[in-house]
Amino acid sequence: MNSMKKIMKYLSFSFSTLLVATTVQSAPKNIIMIVGDGMGPAYTAAYRYFSDNPATTEIEATVFDRILVGRATTYPAPVSGYVTDSAASGTALATGHKSYNGAIGVDANKKPVQSVLEYAKSIGKSTGLVVTSQINHATPASYASHVESRKMYNKIADQYFDLKTNGKFTVDVMLGGGWNYFIRDDRDLTKEFTQANYQYIDSYQQLSQINSDQVLGLFADSGLPWTLDEQHPNRLKAMTVAAIDRLNNNKQGYFVLIEASQIDWAGHSNDIASAMAEMADLSETVEWLEQYVASNPDTLVVMTADHSTGGFTIGANGEYAWKPQFIKNLTASPKAIAKSQLTAGFNSEKIAQQLGFELTSDEVTALKQAHKVDQKTLYIAIKHLLDIRTNTGWTTSGHTGVDVPVFAFGDSKELFAGQIDNTDIAKTIFKLLGK
Amino acid sequence: MNSMKKIMKYLSFSFSTLLVATTVQSAPKNIIMIVGDGMGPAYTAAYRYFSDNPATTEIEATVFDRILVGRATTYPAPVSGYVTDSAASGTALATGHKSYNGAIGVDANKKPVQSVLEYAKSIGKSTGLVVTSQINHATPASYASHVESRKMYNKIADQYFDLKTNGKFTVDVMLGGGWNYFIRDDRDLTKEFTQANYQYIDSYQQLSQINSDQVLGLFADSGLPWTLDEQHPNRLKAMTVAAIDRLNNNKQGYFVLIEASQIDWAGHSNDIASAMAEMADLSETVEWLEQYVASNPDTLVVMTADHSTGGFTIGANGEYAWKPQFIKNLTASPKAIAKSQLTAGFNSEKIAQQLGFELTSDEVTALKQAHKVDQKTLYIAIKHLLDIRTNTGWTTSGHTGVDVPVFAFGDSKELFAGQIDNTDIAKTIFKLLGK
Repeated sequence: MNSMKKIMKYLSFSFSTLLVATTVQSAPKNIIMIVGDGMGPAYTAAYRYFSDNPATTEIEATVFDRILVGRATTYPAPVSGYVTDSAASGTALATGHKSYNGAIGVDANKKPVQSVLEYAKSIGKSTGLVVTSQINHATPASYASHVESRKMYNKIADQYFDLKTNGKFTVDVMLGGGWNYFIRDDRDLTKEFTQANYQYIDSYQQLSQINSDQVLGLFADSGLPWTLDEQHPNRLKAMTVAAIDRLNNNKQGYFVLIEASQIDWAGHSNDIASAMAEMADLSETVEWLEQYVASNPDTLVVMTADHSTGGFTIGANGEYAWKPQFIKNLTASPKAIAKSQLTAGFNSEKIAQQLGFELTSDEVTALKQAHKVDQKTLYIAIKHLLDIRTNTGWTTSGHTGVDVPVFAFGDSKELFAGQIDNTDIAKTIFKLLGK
Repeated sequence: MNSMKKIMKYLSFSFSTLLVATTVQSAPKNIIMIVGDGMGPAYTAAYRYFSDNPATTEIEATVFDRILVGRATTYPAPVSGYVTDSAASGTALATGHKSYNGAIGVDANKKPVQSVLEYAKSIGKSTGLVVTSQINHATPASYASHVESRKMYNKIADQYFDLKTNGKFTVDVMLGGGWNYFIRDDRDLTKEFTQANYQYIDSYQQLSQINSDQVLGLFADSGLPWTLDEQHPNRLKAMTVAAIDRLNNNKQGYFVLIEASQIDWAGHSNDIASAMAEMADLSETVEWLEQYVASNPDTLVVMTADHSTGGFTIGANGEYAWKPQFIKNLTASPKAIAKSQLTAGFNSEKIAQQLGFELTSDEVTALKQAHKVDQKTLYIAIKHLLDIRTNTGWTTSGHTGVDVPVFAFGDSKELFAGQIDNTDIAKTIFKLLGK
């Protein structure tokens, strides 16, 4: 009997230990939030077919396929209807508050609301913003500023310097574009940050030379060039690696926002070639993070889109097909191809070379006529040609209201599964941070 | 030490018991498979906004929001590229085999492959097909027939009678449309089924008078009328309730396929009003099933789409808006409205009444001009008017390759979570059935 009692005691202990293990939430030390701007459900599916190896009968799974956990609603505050812009959705993802289209870090009553990044800083974590747009663009701005309108670019940049958290700068690592807004006649924020002991870098080469845990890196006037036009095509990955290398130095962990900003811009422009190239940069970034989390398991990675852009569809015009082979070999973005034709005169062989496939005589005629009008018309004609070749559909130059995929891996990933709202992502991160 | 050994033995036992409990899968007695044909991700999101109560600031969650677990790839066998038709995807969902577009219950080599419904029958479960198309249409056909081409409608109907499983009829309950294929000059399958002791019914009223566990119910020449034109708008729910009432009589359980077939047809036709009305019929069906599963917890419900249709987008034309208020009050389908104008002469007030809102003079002019051409032109004009009013986008009269949402509730629902392939749904159901 005594032995039985002991056994029961041990069993009881072992069961309650198990119970605790399954009900008490562990808190990840590091939280990496990724936004694929505009990356609605068609984008991640299309990327699978874009990156499919046609030499195999199998369709290879992408990193997105490995980490999908659910989807999120994106609608803004009622005043803005059912279709969000990047400001309202950025604010929802960053703060947990629905707001009006245009709002940056303020609620529907224009009252500033705290972001998960700001809260992370307030409890001693390091923080970062890593984006391919200007770093004061709507999504990153929602994490570290509070203004009535996303158009207040200078004010947002100013707030990155002026708004402090517990007397300290709110964002430790800022990497992206934005000279136009940080180096102005009235104020040079790069100098102000330098004087405040931030390292300032302005070329990708310097990413390997960062020697301060507080750094401002600006690499373009506003957004970075299309990845198709970059010497450094995996710039998002390169910036991410450099940022996390510094953020890792804080034993209390970090929160970083990483945004593949230009998936959205390709969507707005209805440019399928640039969209898939930007997806490739994001894909390589997330693949690197998979390995990082494998050796840093106290890290949570959450990824979603803020909305879907362009009404992009995989297939169009009654045909049951999508043919990504025609956008796999571009040597420049459609915009850059159009530009190069304007400066050097019309040369259909050069366009064919840049696109990576031979043009039909009808295609050459159409491009020649567009070239006679202007650069914008030629740009549109090239995109149209690729839409027809790939059988890609678009319905808008703006956003649509479809739910967006949610991905997560690492510590606490299960908290983001199933159907959630974009505000739930911020609310759950706040909880994990202990708020 | 002896006591410690005993404890260790007990602990070891208790842990392995726990391990078994978490790894051995319970098998649901009943499996309900639902296909929202063509119901890509934009459809369930749009339905949320369509059914939103504008009198509240909250966006009410739909049944789809409550039960989402992941999403599925839909691509067919390599020979058919990346965009599937309903036959290849029906075959994937029913049998677990990728096949070519057009294939019904045969693999890429045209070899017949067993469906989960056929296997369920072979182990003593009851089976059913409940659809709003003709019941020999591609999706249901994939579960109970094996032909080279979906167009072989008569052969498929014949196989429902001729192909036996262990000497018995394969499908116990068949409800949907299809007189054209079941009552023919060369063969009257309704008589053959009646002679084989099936009950045959041909009106919705008779759904409450079924007194046999084997029943064939046909309610239209081919597909059922649009739900917007039905006296019985919730016909899918009514058929489902009647089918499950009979299938429930088998103590060994059942497998039933339920298909909201005409979401797809509305998508092909780019008819947003009919699409949302068909979604409403499906929604009410699933809400009823939620209650059914609450009192029959040994039941699994899995729902997905076979593909997305129409390239439907929630918003279009650069405007950040979707305005479902213009499709909430139709008293007839756009097709029926066009038809009624042709028989009775052009009457813009009647159209306004049928649509549920006042028309502008420009809209009246456009409809009047379309009316002068023919019924089809007027039908297209009415749909176009609703697209403009609601700001709905479409890119195709066919299918697109976006991944489709996966929903599940009840016993074993967790097996369908995350990113899966459409064939995984059949493979998991086969496992649950013990194959």
